[in-house]
Amino acid sequence: MDMSRVRVHNLTISLDGYGAGEPQTTELPFGHGAHIMDWFKATRSFHNMIGDPEGGETGIDDDFASRWGEGIGVEIMGRGKYAPGSGPWPDEWRGWWGEEPPFHTPCVVLTHHPREQLEMAGGTTFYFSDASPADALTHARQLAPGTDVRLGGGMTTVGAFLEAGLVDYMHLAIAPVLLGRGSRLWSDGLEGLESQFDEVRVTSSPSGTTHIEFECA
Amino acid sequence: MDMSRVRVHNLTISLDGYGAGEPQTTELPFGHGAHIMDWFKATRSFHNMIGDPEGGETGIDDDFASRWGEGIGVEIMGRGKYAPGSGPWPDEWRGWWGEEPPFHTPCVVLTHHPREQLEMAGGTTFYFSDASPADALTHARQLAPGTDVRLGGGMTTVGAFLEAGLVDYMHLAIAPVLLGRGSRLWSDGLEGLESQFDEVRVTSSPSGTTHIEFECA
Repeated sequence: MDMSRVRVHNLTISLDGYGAGEPQTTELPFGHGAHIMDWFKATRSFHNMIGDPEGGETGIDDDFASRWGEGIGVEIMGRGKYAPGSGPWPDEWRGWWGEEPPFHTPCVVLTHHPREQLEMAGGTTFYFSDASPADALTHARQLAPGTDVRLGGGMTTVGAFLEAGLVDYMHLAIAPVLLGRGSRLWSDGLEGLESQFDEVRVTSSPSGTTHIEFECA
Repeated sequence: MDMSRVRVHNLTISLDGYGAGEPQTTELPFGHGAHIMDWFKATRSFHNMIGDPEGGETGIDDDFASRWGEGIGVEIMGRGKYAPGSGPWPDEWRGWWGEEPPFHTPCVVLTHHPREQLEMAGGTTFYFSDASPADALTHARQLAPGTDVRLGGGMTTVGAFLEAGLVDYMHLAIAPVLLGRGSRLWSDGLEGLESQFDEVRVTSSPSGTTHIEFECA
């Protein structure tokens, strides 16, 4: 019996359902939509992550942000989270996060252009895989047996795992803004998604963010 | 100086932005999406409206639902709220609400097929108009000078007034469900909508509903 859960944390979309703006570039990974992450950047947990342990605020938003790493031993992310653009890799690209990425675990990057694994400082190793969601999950669990798997985004990747019924917990944050364009989380294939889960909890925070949790028992 | 405000109340959408499902029929005005209104149907205010003054629940949801009528002297609604389908009118159609509709004010129905006004019991009179949002507003204010104008929906009508910058207050309720298809509120033309308003407030309720208020000072 496999008790390892697949969890999504801090996935943030606008009111109109966009999780990133456009165009996505090396300088602006969220395109015109960077402000949807303002709630997260204001938290103590984010400031910890960037080496400023006294900075940022505690409270409801931070309570959610802080759960990102608990019990997680591996992450699965889409190509769009790891690098801008699509198609063959620019050889020199090592991720958005510099030489010591904040993951500190193996990370499986889903891509139609697999390449050699890339070991970074601080315990993060990127593995590149052309697998289906189910097979990527098997791979991730082999890399970190007995731990939970974080599904890190972006929108297309989370949508594919949701459509396949492979998500056990999803924390979604909705920023009270309209982006109008970009990458959408919700596809027609997700009609009735809430019924996949045993509980749906909704919590608003003083920043105007709505935190929605979908959870399987 | 005109202090009459244009207000939207209880406009309800799913997480993926649909305000009604499909297909819309005379029996099912919300198509497959009727459950997005469950939060509203559980309120004391709704029960009052249907002649059951002791029924329903008070609380956060009811606090929002109860503000529907305060200071309102006239409503503007789209064809889609008044009747199913499109094109020329079925002659016998007198609205979804029976002989005594719950509005008790003049109502301007936007349609490409204007026809004679229709006086109902209890103070509701339907006026049918092919006007632009701005002209419909002038007409509504002539029908009920000095009062606020309620913009009653559906999605296309509210979207058109938002795009024209004519809304002073909008209470939007988001139900924690995915409809996957139907009429969407958000269009690309609404990018940055939040900046039209001076304040955006977000309140979650025990029913899992997120109430978002957009308000001009």
